[in-house]
Amino acid sequence: MRRHFAIISPMPKRSSAATLADIALHAQVHKTTASRALDPERRHMVSPEVVGRVEAAARALNYRVNRAASALRTGRSGTVGVLLPDITNPVFPPILRGIEQALAAEGFFVLVADTGNEQAPDEAADRMLAQRVEGLIIATSSLHDPLVERLVRDQVKVVLVNRRDEDGSLPAVVSDDMLGMKLAVDHLVSIGHRRIAHLSGPLALSTGSLRQAGFIQAMAAHGLEPAGFAQCDAYSCDAGEEGTRALLGTGAEFTAIVAANDLIALGAIQALQQRGRTVPQDVSVVGHNDMPLMDRVSPPLTTVRILHYEMGFRAARLLLDSLRGVPGTTSTVVLRPELVVRGSSAPL
Amino acid sequence: MRRHFAIISPMPKRSSAATLADIALHAQVHKTTASRALDPERRHMVSPEVVGRVEAAARALNYRVNRAASALRTGRSGTVGVLLPDITNPVFPPILRGIEQALAAEGFFVLVADTGNEQAPDEAADRMLAQRVEGLIIATSSLHDPLVERLVRDQVKVVLVNRRDEDGSLPAVVSDDMLGMKLAVDHLVSIGHRRIAHLSGPLALSTGSLRQAGFIQAMAAHGLEPAGFAQCDAYSCDAGEEGTRALLGTGAEFTAIVAANDLIALGAIQALQQRGRTVPQDVSVVGHNDMPLMDRVSPPLTTVRILHYEMGFRAARLLLDSLRGVPGTTSTVVLRPELVVRGSSAPL
Repeated sequence: MRRHFAIISPMPKRSSAATLADIALHAQVHKTTASRALDPERRHMVSPEVVGRVEAAARALNYRVNRAASALRTGRSGTVGVLLPDITNPVFPPILRGIEQALAAEGFFVLVADTGNEQAPDEAADRMLAQRVEGLIIATSSLHDPLVERLVRDQVKVVLVNRRDEDGSLPAVVSDDMLGMKLAVDHLVSIGHRRIAHLSGPLALSTGSLRQAGFIQAMAAHGLEPAGFAQCDAYSCDAGEEGTRALLGTGAEFTAIVAANDLIALGAIQALQQRGRTVPQDVSVVGHNDMPLMDRVSPPLTTVRILHYEMGFRAARLLLDSLRGVPGTTSTVVLRPELVVRGSSAPL
Repeated sequence: MRRHFAIISPMPKRSSAATLADIALHAQVHKTTASRALDPERRHMVSPEVVGRVEAAARALNYRVNRAASALRTGRSGTVGVLLPDITNPVFPPILRGIEQALAAEGFFVLVADTGNEQAPDEAADRMLAQRVEGLIIATSSLHDPLVERLVRDQVKVVLVNRRDEDGSLPAVVSDDMLGMKLAVDHLVSIGHRRIAHLSGPLALSTGSLRQAGFIQAMAAHGLEPAGFAQCDAYSCDAGEEGTRALLGTGAEFTAIVAANDLIALGAIQALQQRGRTVPQDVSVVGHNDMPLMDRVSPPLTTVRILHYEMGFRAARLLLDSLRGVPGTTSTVVLRPELVVRGSSAPL
C-alpha cells in the first residue's frame, strides 16, 4: 500500500536530548563507566558510589536510554514479537496479558501483529525481524507450518503458545487438549449420556486435531462410539452454527455435543434452538476454553477451563529462558485444564 | 525486578547477514543508491531499472532491512506505543485490532503495554520512548492526566482513544458519549419508562463523566428527573453489582437502569436477579458499548453500539497524519453510536 499523504515534515529534532557523553561529563567519569553504571547487567563492574553519581547525573539531565542505539550495540532490542490469529477472539486477550506482563517484568516490550484477515503471518514475522525482535511467540501456527520451519532454520528463537507442531519438537506452552476432552466426555457419561457427538475445530491446528483425537479416545475408554462428527472450519460462532446444521443433516442421533471451543459451542446452541431443540433439556452442550463471559451466556456454558493467562505468562518465560541460553527450553509445557459445570449440560 | 537466570549466553551472531554494502556490491551501485532504492519514500530518486537491480540483489542475498540502524539514522523506528488499561476488558481488543491494522498498512508496528494492575502508564510510556516509538496512542487517560500533560510538554505525539481530556485540546477519537445516553434514554421513554436510574462509570474518566452528563441532559429534555444514581468505581461486572446494591440501598424507585457500560449492566442484571427482580419484566437495563457476545448473554443486552474497530483505526490514522505534519491533526474525531435493542429492555 502506497503512502498517500501530501505533506511530509521532518521528525522533531532530538538534538536537545542528553547523551551518554553528557552524563559522563556531568558525573566526571569515563563514558564506558557511565554506560556500565546504567546497565543492570554490568553494574556490578562499577563501585556503588560511582553508580550513585551516574544515576544522579542521569536524573538531573533527564537522560533516556536510547534503546535503538543499544540494540545496535548489543544485538538486544528489548522487544519480542507476538503473532496472533485474531485478537477479537476472546481466548487471546488473557494470553496476551500474560505474555505482556511476564515480559514487562524483565524490561521487554511486546510487538503485536494481529494476522487475522489482512496481514500474512510470514510478512508480519519478517517485518518484526527487521525490527530486531529478539524472539517470537506464535499463536498462529498450524501443525505443519512452513513459516515456523523457516524461522527455526534461520535460528530465530520461537515459542508456540496454545498451539504445537506435529512432532512436538518446538518449545510450546499448551493446555492438555486430550485431557480436556476426557473431562468433557467423562462428565457427560457420568450424567447418563451415551450418544455424544463432536464438533471439531480446524484439523490443521493442533487444538482441532488433538481435541478430536481426545474425544475419540475418551469415548473409547467408556466403550462408546462417537454419535457423529462435524468439522468447523474456524473457531467462531458462525462456524459452530454451520457445523451443527451439517451434523443434524447427517441424521446422527445424539443427546449431547462436545465442542472444540466455546464459540463453536455458542453457535451450536443457537443452531439447536433454531431447530426447536432446547439446551440442556433436549441436548447438552459442552464447550472448551472458558473464555470470559461464558458464565453469563444463556444457558451458562459448561466448559473446559484452560489457563489462558498462565499460558501466555509461561510462554514468555520460556522465550526469555531460551534467549539467555538456559538449558531445556525446547521442552513443551502442558498445563492442566479443569471442568466447569454450568447450565448447558444436564442429566439425560 | 532483578533478572534471576543462572546461565547467560551471548545472542547468536548476525555477522552472516547481508548488509547494505553487500547489496550495493552485488547490484554494482553506490551504497547510497542501494539505500534509496530500498526506501519507499526515496525510491523516486533512483531509476526504475536500478530499483529492480537492487531489489533483485536484496532478494538473492536474503537481505533484511535493519530497522534498528534505520531508526538511529532517520529518527524513525516504525513503531507506535499503545497504552491500554485492561486488554481483558472486551471493549479494547477490537480497538487494538483497528489500531494495529491501520498502522500495519503503513509499515508500522504496535508496541503494547497493558497497564492494568502491575505496570504504571507513565513507566510504560517512558520505556516506550526509550524504545524510540514515534508516537503514543493512549486509552488510559483520565480527564486531568499528569502523564499526558507531561508528554505534551515534551512534544511527544499523542492521540487519545475512547477517552478525551477535560478541555478537548488533545487529538482524540471517541464515541459521542452524550448522544449515546440520549439514544438509551429516548428508547426507554418511548416504551413508557419515566423512573430511570443511572449507574455511572468512574467520573475521573471522560466516558464516565460525559455519559453521566448525557444521561441528565437527556432526561431533562423529556422533563424528567433522574430516579437515582450510583457511581461504579470501575468498568467491571463486580463494580456493577456493587453499584446496583448501593442504588437499591438508597430506596430509589425505578423501572429502568441506564448503565455507563455493558459490564456494569451485566453486574446490574446479576444484582437485580439476586434481589428477586427479573430483567426486563421488573426492570429494564440498557448498557453501553455493545461489546462482543452481548447478543448471547441472558437476557440479550439492549445497548449503545460504539464503533470500536473504527475508533482504533481512526486514532492510528490521526497519529500517522500528525507524525507527517498534516495540518488539523489536533482535532477530536467524534464517532456516532447507535442503539441496539435486544431483550433486556421491555415496555413498562
